[in-house]
Amino acid sequence: MPPATSTPAEHAVPTSAERGALRRSCTLVVPGHPVQEPGAELAAIGAWCTAHGWRADLYGSGPLIDTFEQKLASLLGKEAAVFMPSGTMAQQIALRIWCDRAGVPHFAMHGTAHPELHEQRAYAHLHGLHATLLGDAARPTSAADLDACAERLAALLLELPAREIGGQLPSWEGLVELAERARARNVRLHMDGARLWEAREAYAPHTYAEICAHFDSVYVSFYKGIGALSGAMLAGPSDFVQEARVWRHRHGGTLVQLHPAVASAAMRFDAALARMPAYRARAFALADGLARIPGCVIRPVAPQVNLFHLHLAADAAALDLARDRIAREAGLWLANRFVALPTPGMAVTELYVGENLLDADDAIVLPAFARLLEYARTSAR
Amino acid sequence: MPPATSTPAEHAVPTSAERGALRRSCTLVVPGHPVQEPGAELAAIGAWCTAHGWRADLYGSGPLIDTFEQKLASLLGKEAAVFMPSGTMAQQIALRIWCDRAGVPHFAMHGTAHPELHEQRAYAHLHGLHATLLGDAARPTSAADLDACAERLAALLLELPAREIGGQLPSWEGLVELAERARARNVRLHMDGARLWEAREAYAPHTYAEICAHFDSVYVSFYKGIGALSGAMLAGPSDFVQEARVWRHRHGGTLVQLHPAVASAAMRFDAALARMPAYRARAFALADGLARIPGCVIRPVAPQVNLFHLHLAADAAALDLARDRIAREAGLWLANRFVALPTPGMAVTELYVGENLLDADDAIVLPAFARLLEYARTSAR
Repeated sequence: MPPATSTPAEHAVPTSAERGALRRSCTLVVPGHPVQEPGAELAAIGAWCTAHGWRADLYGSGPLIDTFEQKLASLLGKEAAVFMPSGTMAQQIALRIWCDRAGVPHFAMHGTAHPELHEQRAYAHLHGLHATLLGDAARPTSAADLDACAERLAALLLELPAREIGGQLPSWEGLVELAERARARNVRLHMDGARLWEAREAYAPHTYAEICAHFDSVYVSFYKGIGALSGAMLAGPSDFVQEARVWRHRHGGTLVQLHPAVASAAMRFDAALARMPAYRARAFALADGLARIPGCVIRPVAPQVNLFHLHLAADAAALDLARDRIAREAGLWLANRFVALPTPGMAVTELYVGENLLDADDAIVLPAFARLLEYARTSAR
Repeated sequence: MPPATSTPAEHAVPTSAERGALRRSCTLVVPGHPVQEPGAELAAIGAWCTAHGWRADLYGSGPLIDTFEQKLASLLGKEAAVFMPSGTMAQQIALRIWCDRAGVPHFAMHGTAHPELHEQRAYAHLHGLHATLLGDAARPTSAADLDACAERLAALLLELPAREIGGQLPSWEGLVELAERARARNVRLHMDGARLWEAREAYAPHTYAEICAHFDSVYVSFYKGIGALSGAMLAGPSDFVQEARVWRHRHGGTLVQLHPAVASAAMRFDAALARMPAYRARAFALADGLARIPGCVIRPVAPQVNLFHLHLAADAAALDLARDRIAREAGLWLANRFVALPTPGMAVTELYVGENLLDADDAIVLPAFARLLEYARTSAR
């Protein structure tokens, strides 16, 4: 496909709509999965529902949603699970229940946890909860971080892997130690498993259920790695999940019909999980290659999952323009967003390796990243 | 279609799945609109999205959702509107904003209002708000009811029409008076307009915008009268709607992709609104006929919208079984749910007249209701 005709002049900053058009015009988009156009996606979900004879659920109840909830509960080794419209809703609800049960409106999490950075502090504004940010924000939470917190806590939220620090995971031993310490203190351990599907290979041969056994409650997402429209699942003990249903209702999340999101997740779930090992292997190969380019640094140095951070010795704004230029010249979209790092002249982008990159040749991709740096440095002069 | 083969023995109480199958086997279902099977509905939305070239929105932002929000804001005569996954979420957010602005965590509503009866008291548990229930629960809220409340209130929620009392509306003069009284007391008036589409004809020739001009904020629904998958809109001043977007995020309602619900509403909106006068006329004809059947009483005596309550001189459980029997015998589903009234031997059902009944002949429907009473009374003996 040729680039969009409304191509902005080089060095002019395009609007986000222009950038979207430019991205869509590319023949290879490095990060993520292919974008689903609404028409095709909804038609596919509709055909799948018809083929399986699913009827519309009503307020979160019906055979399709029940079956999928039971499947996830079983996979995660929990008594029950409840479908949630979003992870933001799921995690607040988990934290609220554990805090209410403990009679302590106080939980702990990593400094880069989603509820702290990306939910408008809903845990405080909606649920009246207080949070302690544990440990060094540059590395995963450890048992020592919990030990260092003298306060009485109802729960600890642990994100596996920690997205904002390049998908880092605690070691298996570190996870076991943290879980034991939490249990000893009567602190409920809740997993932010938005990318649990991506994390499992790193803990192989441990199963999802074995990982989740260290947690009292688990949230997983269906739109990130799985590629569904939207939606999440919250799993845990039966009484916890029953209470979570009441809170989902209170949040306004027990929609009259949830099946578009449920079906979108259910129809692709098994196939999507089966692709995760390939994404991880592909990510490791890409990271290896990128690490050899002068001016590129990978975080973590040895990626643990199919998501890592690429730190680049160039200005963020110049990288954005260089990325656009390569998109126009070569139909190659290298990265979505560059963010300035504290070090002047350094920027970072997240690379999530998914379906897009599986068949792409590093003999094309890696030189393009070298060119990205070259263009960014030239334009910045 | 023949009745389901797993027909339960007469007088045995069927499960809800059996009742669902029985309902689906009927050739005429009196209340409501035809049930959309997920496959066909999603295929239709998908085709509509493709035909219009809509792309997937992202976290509530994109041309499809923006266009629909602007259309609704304009129709309702408000500066702005924001799509909400559910009315439960929309109304809590409206009340919270008005209460926060007033510095008074206290609002008023009718004793049968949705936040009081059907939201697990989320306004208190999630938002820490207190509610006063105004006036006589058997009639719509009036200016005198507000006068009788001596407390300092931030907001008053008014449902138009009041569903739980048979779709009653205040008169236009009564509405104007209440709005003036609220304004004089600096109490924000919020409309629960879940069925505003159904109410407009009763206030003709006044437009939606003229009705909404009496309110500071308005919630409308897309799944009830409009027949969309799910979803709602909250309209009001621009700064209010901007704040509502932050709260939608906090509630976990800013889903990564909202377009299935948005498209489902947008594609049928104009056509659905145009049907409302026909539903109302049909409802009035049905109510007239039902009122002539001994043992049937209509509430309100003169219905105001296409929804009213049918009070029946029979036991609720016996009516359920009689309804099932008529469904099996005649393929005619008369009503969804019978609820016992305080008067022993009396029960009530809500009749929402929609697409289903438009072409149905009262020469068939009315005798079936007479038979319903006869069967219910016979079996109760």
